[in-house]
Amino acid sequence: MIYITRRERFNAAHKLFREEWSDEKNLETFGKCSNPNWHGHNYELFVTVKGTVNPETGFVIDLKELKNIIRTQVTDALDHKNINLDVNFMKGKMASTEVLAVAIFDQLKTHVEEQGAKLHSIKLYETENNFVEYLGE
Amino acid sequence: MIYITRRERFNAAHKLFREEWSDEKNLETFGKCSNPNWHGHNYELFVTVKGTVNPETGFVIDLKELKNIIRTQVTDALDHKNINLDVNFMKGKMASTEVLAVAIFDQLKTHVEEQGAKLHSIKLYETENNFVEYLGE
Amino acid sequence: MIYITRRERFNAAHKLFREEWSDEKNLETFGKCSNPNWHGHNYELFVTVKGTVNPETGFVIDLKELKNIIRTQVTDALDHKNINLDVNFMKGKMASTEVLAVAIFDQLKTHVEEQGAKLHSIKLYETENNFVEYLGE
Amino acid sequence: MIYITRRERFNAAHKLFREEWSDEKNLETFGKCSNPNWHGHNYELFVTVKGTVNPETGFVIDLKELKNIIRTQVTDALDHKNINLDVNFMKGKMASTEVLAVAIFDQLKTHVEEQGAKLHSIKLYETENNFVEYLGE
Amino acid sequence: MIYITRRERFNAAHKLFREEWSDEKNLETFGKCSNPNWHGHNYELFVTVKGTVNPETGFVIDLKELKNIIRTQVTDALDHKNINLDVNFMKGKMASTEVLAVAIFDQLKTHVEEQGAKLHSIKLYETENNFVEYLGE
Amino acid sequence: MIYITRRERFNAAHKLFREEWSDEKNLETFGKCSNPNWHGHNYELFVTVKGTVNPETGFVIDLKELKNIIRTQVTDALDHKNINLDVNFMKGKMASTEVLAVAIFDQLKTHVEEQGAKLHSIKLYETENNFVEYLGE
Repeated sequence: MIYITRRERFNAAHKLFREEWSDEKNLETFGKCSNPNWHGHNYELFVTVKGTVNPETGFVIDLKELKNIIRTQVTDALDHKNINLDVNFMKGKMASTEVLAVAIFDQLKTHVEEQGAKLHSIKLYETENNFVEYLGE
Repeated sequence: MIYITRRERFNAAHKLFREEWSDEKNLETFGKCSNPNWHGHNYELFVTVKGTVNPETGFVIDLKELKNIIRTQVTDALDHKNINLDVNFMKGKMASTEVLAVAIFDQLKTHVEEQGAKLHSIKLYETENNFVEYLGE
Repeated sequence: MIYITRRERFNAAHKLFREEWSDEKNLETFGKCSNPNWHGHNYELFVTVKGTVNPETGFVIDLKELKNIIRTQVTDALDHKNINLDVNFMKGKMASTEVLAVAIFDQLKTHVEEQGAKLHSIKLYETENNFVEYLGE
Repeated sequence: MIYITRRERFNAAHKLFREEWSDEKNLETFGKCSNPNWHGHNYELFVTVKGTVNPETGFVIDLKELKNIIRTQVTDALDHKNINLDVNFMKGKMASTEVLAVAIFDQLKTHVEEQGAKLHSIKLYETENNFVEYLGE
Repeated sequence: MIYITRRERFNAAHKLFREEWSDEKNLETFGKCSNPNWHGHNYELFVTVKGTVNPETGFVIDLKELKNIIRTQVTDALDHKNINLDVNFMKGKMASTEVLAVAIFDQLKTHVEEQGAKLHSIKLYETENNFVEYLGE
Repeated sequence: MIYITRRERFNAAHKLFREEWSDEKNLETFGKCSNPNWHGHNYELFVTVKGTVNPETGFVIDLKELKNIIRTQVTDALDHKNINLDVNFMKGKMASTEVLAVAIFDQLKTHVEEQGAKLHSIKLYETENNFVEYLGE
């Protein structure tokens, strides 16, 4: 069993905000992340896949395929977008790093399995000081 | 003459968009940066000050003062904000990294001079792959 | 279950030195880290907390609270200090990265639990080439 | 139980190529990594060792010893070398990051155990976007 | 006048070696960089362009165009290649970082000028510890 | 004319403190950097040399020589040392980053010139947020 990780990046706007709450309650709960006019981040995404090494190729997974999957299932939908408004798989969800990491895991899981490997974890950096990791359960 | 640099960071939303143009022309000119619903970045700002070394303190400028100036004049206005909508010193300007770097230089210049030093340059990273530098002329 | 990590930094002096040993034995055992006049580092600390996501906020823990806990319980005591001489929770201990990581874990554990989450691990970088991780047991 | 990690680096040439395949099949399978004239990387290697803390020294392992082991058993053989042609412990193997990580683990395991610790994992970066981790089974 | 920089990366093999010299003299002069079987690097390239800001777009140069120029004129020729054997604009030249930086400058100069800007400098990292800068004269 | 830069690192203790001042005045002027028991940093040093490219070697300067000079003239004296107490070329000087950068320049200048090149600048990072540059005048 070996683990291989691919890094991808995307730049997006978001806010932490519950429409049914007042601006005051949003501010109290989410601080400056609740700015109604949005803010944004350069997100860094690390996708880790595990499996056995194919003796012919020396690969766990073809990284070109993994890159393709991440782009078509995840980063094309997020890059230069508004996470709250533009992203189908985030509709109706809080745009926190935690919730986004879980949603990205769910977007990728079966596509990685179709390549004969297993999705191990999603690590998502919001800033150089904050990141989230999700292992699928 | 010695140069000293302080790094500060801010997270903001923006778009590259001219209201008087059609969405198509904006898209053609600015690509995915024209997304009407905004996107965002973790900006990294490097402020370089030059001067002579004070023999008593060994300092060109007190970095606590420089940090204060950058926060009150620049990053408090930009952090967790929308550059196009929320920032007084960017009103009516294109929210490109180039234009933002010039505006930040102008915000800081006299405040640095009041400390007995000279503002040498602003370096502003939009992503790990793109940055802008402005030397004041 | 999701894992969230906060990075904090502190700059400190230390030495690896046993007072009951001769300078020669200290040098032989600890090499240049035993310099009697101290040396120092920019430490990078990664605190990882785990828990379930609060459906209202999308948070495992409020990062502002986590940041507060790390500062009041750990980094205020270490930053710009001498680890051997100035830090209560390191008194009588070797100032190695391993021992410091364990002490930081013990400083944080109950305070993180009071926020409804669990302290998962402490990762502590002494230099870009050396770091230690402790998971609490 | 505590984990300590040492980073080392080496620069090497390699190609992903099976001699018994045509250039076309190699290109189709390995893409530009199959260039017959080689390409190369700045590899970053993270060796993680686990054990209990020696109460006299505060160490899991003497990092000077760990550094020595990594250099004599691994990086002296790889640095400024061709992984396919020059490295005994890679003879007859695919020069993929996955296979190389496993081979490095096998080179180090018993030497780390002779120091009274246990080799926990090898993490090997081929580029800033791709890395592999191996835990020994 | 404002400066804008684009980072691109390429992975390549090379050696420092003069065919008309003996292996001994090559080794004495170039050290382990003279390994006849090649070694390689992850090169990081920073291309800095200067000009005035277009008031309509806020741009010095369209970064999509700059990226295109760098790829078609430079990195497509170098990435996953052997600098000594595969690269037309390096034929007959020493494959040192210095010589490569000058050659890259010459590849880019007129193409940048066709975009209405001026090529200011090339910065080329061979490793995290070594880099070269060339300003065109 | 081409510029080549070598990075070296050292870990050291220091304080910003004038013995002839009271602790109160030191604290007021230098803040937490005045802690009488010292603190410390992982310093990063970038030494930039300029010259013409030797057509035989492709080098401005032999980097092995430059590395040697930096180690024997600068980092051997600073690494794992106390800048205020242990370093001959800092005796009687303030241990600020500015003053240290100037002193390092003076240590290196003639040794670089003996290699047929010219010392262009010293860049010295005290933390990831603060650095100083000195060009020799």
